[in-house]
Amino acid sequence: MLAELITIGDEILIGQIVDTNSAWMAAELNKIGIKIKQISSVSDDVSHIVEALQEAEKRADIILITGGLGPTKDDITKKTLAKYFNCDEFVMHKPTLAIVEGIFAKYNAPLLAVNIQQAMVPTCCKVILNPQGTAPAMLFKKADKIFISMPGVPYEMKNIMSSSVIPLIQEKYNLPAVYHQTILTAGVGESFLAEKLEAIEDSLPAYIKLAYLPKLGSVRLRLSTLEHASPQIIEEVKAYTQKIIDTIPNHWVAKEDLPIEKVILNLMESKGLTLSVAESCTGGAVAKMLTQHTGSSSVFMGGGVVYSNGLKIKLLDVKPETLENFGAVSEPTIEEMARGAIKNFETDYSIAVSGIAGPSGGTLEKPVGTVWIAVANKEKTVAKKFTFGNKRTQNIERSVMAAFTMLFRLLKENTEAAS
Amino acid sequence: MLAELITIGDEILIGQIVDTNSAWMAAELNKIGIKIKQISSVSDDVSHIVEALQEAEKRADIILITGGLGPTKDDITKKTLAKYFNCDEFVMHKPTLAIVEGIFAKYNAPLLAVNIQQAMVPTCCKVILNPQGTAPAMLFKKADKIFISMPGVPYEMKNIMSSSVIPLIQEKYNLPAVYHQTILTAGVGESFLAEKLEAIEDSLPAYIKLAYLPKLGSVRLRLSTLEHASPQIIEEVKAYTQKIIDTIPNHWVAKEDLPIEKVILNLMESKGLTLSVAESCTGGAVAKMLTQHTGSSSVFMGGGVVYSNGLKIKLLDVKPETLENFGAVSEPTIEEMARGAIKNFETDYSIAVSGIAGPSGGTLEKPVGTVWIAVANKEKTVAKKFTFGNKRTQNIERSVMAAFTMLFRLLKENTEAAS
Repeated sequence: MLAELITIGDEILIGQIVDTNSAWMAAELNKIGIKIKQISSVSDDVSHIVEALQEAEKRADIILITGGLGPTKDDITKKTLAKYFNCDEFVMHKPTLAIVEGIFAKYNAPLLAVNIQQAMVPTCCKVILNPQGTAPAMLFKKADKIFISMPGVPYEMKNIMSSSVIPLIQEKYNLPAVYHQTILTAGVGESFLAEKLEAIEDSLPAYIKLAYLPKLGSVRLRLSTLEHASPQIIEEVKAYTQKIIDTIPNHWVAKEDLPIEKVILNLMESKGLTLSVAESCTGGAVAKMLTQHTGSSSVFMGGGVVYSNGLKIKLLDVKPETLENFGAVSEPTIEEMARGAIKNFETDYSIAVSGIAGPSGGTLEKPVGTVWIAVANKEKTVAKKFTFGNKRTQNIERSVMAAFTMLFRLLKENTEAAS
Repeated sequence: MLAELITIGDEILIGQIVDTNSAWMAAELNKIGIKIKQISSVSDDVSHIVEALQEAEKRADIILITGGLGPTKDDITKKTLAKYFNCDEFVMHKPTLAIVEGIFAKYNAPLLAVNIQQAMVPTCCKVILNPQGTAPAMLFKKADKIFISMPGVPYEMKNIMSSSVIPLIQEKYNLPAVYHQTILTAGVGESFLAEKLEAIEDSLPAYIKLAYLPKLGSVRLRLSTLEHASPQIIEEVKAYTQKIIDTIPNHWVAKEDLPIEKVILNLMESKGLTLSVAESCTGGAVAKMLTQHTGSSSVFMGGGVVYSNGLKIKLLDVKPETLENFGAVSEPTIEEMARGAIKNFETDYSIAVSGIAGPSGGTLEKPVGTVWIAVANKEKTVAKKFTFGNKRTQNIERSVMAAFTMLFRLLKENTEAAS
């Protein structure tokens, strides 16, 4: 079963926006066993859209289209699709009109004729409701192929995909109900894991596949069934999951598809523990990762962005002598930062980061990319030096991931010892 | 002159990575007057790559290809291109071999046969050096069309594009040397600006175009010449730039294509001013935006991520009564936070943000999306309430942009009054 994605919109072709929709859609389709043959971005131009549809139709069974459904003149996807499927007649779709009216009523905005037009659809399509926006999704059939047009607004598209399109595709094509089990690992690379897990991978039956999904300092392992997941096969997947975990006891983080900081927040919340940060070179990036998650405030109290030495002394009680004798990027300083955060921010755990993110500021002894990280609780402080590369943004990202990995290990050690 | 972009790699089609290269390349090509007809992502598969090349060749004059140039077996772009251009003979490209050897020597890594293979190129291509990586770029010609294959690593590709590909395209196609002038605005929307600037836009000569480039709470205006930019035309663009600035005196931020926080850092550095932050609902996002820029440490001292009320009191001297009587999201609290940052973090200016990012935590009186922002210097505090939407990530991003806009206005007021 092959699919193609077509994104429509001049804003993509002039580079004004990055198409993040396609990667998300591809990953979701992949999970139900559908391969993406091609992703194409084309302009708001009738003949070009038609050409893209023709080419995709030759190669794939399922064609998903996003964008070009807005109320303005340059949004021509709907009428182009009507033309492509030879149905020029449009009708008012009442449930969509009700949604449009509801949205305008909520924001007290005047409902214009162009907005009402949003609820007009070609007679030959089946409407898929978009409860979050004014443009509905539309399903067209041609022989055994299906074409689904969705709005390009990411959260609207994601909701339509998850609640309607994915179930619809699974049902229509009678796809096997695939079962996935994700294992999050941190702190080690793909090739290290592949070597450790070689024997398990070789022993997998033909209907269970192991995928390595590396991303920014962590690798997710995903076991997937390649055929219908019977209760017995699901049990097998669970047994392999356990085998994998037992093989990498110090590297697995969670049996869920969650980012590591969310795993930490969940674990700490369940134990009633609190966290603070003391960030120098990461400059708020650790805190930002934590606070992007709803409900983080029950665990994360906040902390200091201590870019200057003055603030390291003032907010964290780092001793001026320590800074003078060892420098801001050193083991004694990072330990004092982590301990200072515990004490002054009154939390159970802390993360401290200080390094030379670059591209300038390096020395022979401490080159750009040198980063000290410490994690602490009331009894213990663990500090570690990392030597990353010379790209500022990457050094910051890698420091954040390394800090979470260290904190997770310390938490695990303590919560396991306590339980 | 039309171009197409083809990105090659299974990791894009399974949704493991987002293709950010294409948007960057499209924007750069756009600046020299080249339109992108289509962007296609295809898998590491010979026949599919060949098909994509054939289709792109039909539509465009310039075909830029990224990805699939790595040393592993699944990287087949190079041999597929050789096949496409009927030249199966490969030669060792000595300058590239020298780069490969240099990179491995630097990291003390063993140079394997597959790495040496990276320097082998088809005889029919012209090599474009990639000083930052092991895979060179390759230029192929066919009739009047050119095909350029580049590595997919973003910083390698960007460097090759800027230093080699863009100049080469300009020269080969004798493109007019286009002149651009960007004006950054903040705090107002595209339609507001379009209305204000209507008369100026109508008076523009046919060879100067005004584009609106909205992005996350700020709109960049770009004046571009559509023909060769003679000194006289450049003067005209500068005159129109001045007219625009005079028409929106309170909304333009800079006559450069820089993000607003970088404009602020530059301005403050030139005046020897320092900045701190007190972030509640943005949770480190303001600090992170500032510290991503090299050299930010001369202006930005750091600050507090004060998620909990306890830290608001402890780090910023917010009075417990203020929190009790008015709540954490209120004018009195935000003013105390901004003043507390100035005093305790010992800086000339501060930014404070406190709001309900959502999706939970809202009340009838203070719904999700309610955000108070204050900016202050030693003499003055300016506070403002915003009512954003109900999406957490967007509320945080919009709060950050609004805070920078407010700080810029206060800085401008003071630095202009002082000069």
